[in-house]
Amino acid sequence: MASETSEQPEVWRRLISASTGDSDIARAAALVRKYKPRFVLFVARGSSDHAALYAKYVAEIVHQLPCGLVSPSTMTAYGARPDLSDVLMIGVSQSGGSPDLVQSLEVGRASGALSIAVTNNADSALATAAQAHVDIQAGPELAVAATKSYTAQLLALYLLFAAIREQTAQDHPVSGGDFERLCDAAEELVAADGTVAELAQRYRFASRLVTTGRGYSYPTVREGALKLMETCYLSAQAFSGADLLHGPLAMIDPQVPVLTVAAEGLGGEAMRQVFPRLAEQGADVFCVGTTAAVGAADTGVTLPSGVSEELSPLLEIIPFQQLALHLAIARGGNPDAPRGLRKVTETV
Amino acid sequence: MASETSEQPEVWRRLISASTGDSDIARAAALVRKYKPRFVLFVARGSSDHAALYAKYVAEIVHQLPCGLVSPSTMTAYGARPDLSDVLMIGVSQSGGSPDLVQSLEVGRASGALSIAVTNNADSALATAAQAHVDIQAGPELAVAATKSYTAQLLALYLLFAAIREQTAQDHPVSGGDFERLCDAAEELVAADGTVAELAQRYRFASRLVTTGRGYSYPTVREGALKLMETCYLSAQAFSGADLLHGPLAMIDPQVPVLTVAAEGLGGEAMRQVFPRLAEQGADVFCVGTTAAVGAADTGVTLPSGVSEELSPLLEIIPFQQLALHLAIARGGNPDAPRGLRKVTETV
Repeated sequence: MASETSEQPEVWRRLISASTGDSDIARAAALVRKYKPRFVLFVARGSSDHAALYAKYVAEIVHQLPCGLVSPSTMTAYGARPDLSDVLMIGVSQSGGSPDLVQSLEVGRASGALSIAVTNNADSALATAAQAHVDIQAGPELAVAATKSYTAQLLALYLLFAAIREQTAQDHPVSGGDFERLCDAAEELVAADGTVAELAQRYRFASRLVTTGRGYSYPTVREGALKLMETCYLSAQAFSGADLLHGPLAMIDPQVPVLTVAAEGLGGEAMRQVFPRLAEQGADVFCVGTTAAVGAADTGVTLPSGVSEELSPLLEIIPFQQLALHLAIARGGNPDAPRGLRKVTETV
Repeated sequence: MASETSEQPEVWRRLISASTGDSDIARAAALVRKYKPRFVLFVARGSSDHAALYAKYVAEIVHQLPCGLVSPSTMTAYGARPDLSDVLMIGVSQSGGSPDLVQSLEVGRASGALSIAVTNNADSALATAAQAHVDIQAGPELAVAATKSYTAQLLALYLLFAAIREQTAQDHPVSGGDFERLCDAAEELVAADGTVAELAQRYRFASRLVTTGRGYSYPTVREGALKLMETCYLSAQAFSGADLLHGPLAMIDPQVPVLTVAAEGLGGEAMRQVFPRLAEQGADVFCVGTTAAVGAADTGVTLPSGVSEELSPLLEIIPFQQLALHLAIARGGNPDAPRGLRKVTETV
């Protein structure tokens, strides 16, 4: 898990370089431009579901396309056969092997959707089931807890939607997009691993915690919570900053650490109504974010600046991956082989 | 909270009786039939978001309509203005007062969607913002933790979709629909409150637990977890049975109670692959479900039979509401006024 976490800037550089010219991303994007979807459905589970949630924000905000996350059981257990003409359906999975996702994408395609698979295995059943496949090219991922495949999914989905936009009129273009800055910033975070190892000691005896963020950072806190659950056997619950105030806030007290993300941009700004409420509950607050946000928190990791809000989730997750790793070791666990889990999860 | 929980069969009977003839549900349904939506978007937070999730299953499975749950920040913080022609947008809120939901529905309506509000207050901002309003008629709800308003939302949404179907061809009709049986079954569960009060003692010293179910019962376990968080200050995490196996299973051990739903029907059957994995982790399993499922669990509450799977979520949540109430009292809390919460949550 440590080496796969450190490998991320290299994985991203490879994917960015492979996405130029006549790439699988360009071919998939050309199909989408021709198809002109009116609605986007994502189908995924686990970490891949968080990558899909990220792409939902990109598609809703930048492409102004209404989106949904498929509940796979509707198509598998319940046999729903909706009319999906004008629908772009994107299946996301590291292995491309879970039967329920394959079946959902097959049903989607048969129901008129344009189907695209985003996986780390071009020979997988999901890749074969789809009309186009985007290879995230993360290389073999051996640790059970997904790290590099998660951020490679984020980047592949970002690049796919950027390629879809290339020939369409845009009122709301993505700002920035400086990939070189992104990869350099990731290297800075990877190099700061020792700092996170020290911070991890703070949570050694915690049994439960909460993660929260808004907008583009909401997928980050979902994925961060999953890493902590998988490797540290903590109860880690993720909420959007707004949903947290609609009920779950009650269970936060000084014994429940709150791990937040407040990066540059509108999502981070929207967290401003959340922090005072956390303070009222006496919460201990960790923050991955801007210098100002980390300064106002009890502890945290400052994100390198100069990366657009849309790409920031690739960076934000790195401290959570490092935290999960070091905390797992401190608590006597083996982050590479969490109890009760298999690398490829097959659900039907 | 106790009286509002007990009042539920009466609230449902009132709503069912008011939904016949020229009701607000009939008028909203007529608008939808004329509009012929191709997609449905729901916008809601907290308990109402769980009611929306239930309606998403109804719309996807019974109406074969692709659906999505709106991330409100995309339209509020990020200013997305998608093309929502052919989209039915349903806002669900007990109070009808949260500014971000009102703004999302206003944006949706201005973007071409047919907008319907489902609230407990016909004079609310959300009701006013929508083209049609469905009054859940639950009466004043004073406890901070929503109970009767949640099940009234489920029923109102069920009745709305049933009314939409009335004049459309259907390959996959809802089975059952015996409302009288439903209300009688709810009265049986309300009368069994003392049994749940005894069961609640089992969890008096738990600090975290997991809830899980699939299909139509997934909203139930989400809502059940929220009740326990709000009133008992427990970390209660809800997962679909399939998602649980994709990672979170690792944090389940004999110290983390697992509260499950396995009712009659396909959702309950899909839980069969989950129970053996819980047993491998040594989990203590509570079940709300069929006689067989409860018999196989460590403890639980048997659901009265004879209610269709689509209506079963109205029943399933009652033992969770009772459990949250009695556990809160056992742990020294006040379920009517949880710390840190207000009845109407205003997020922007």
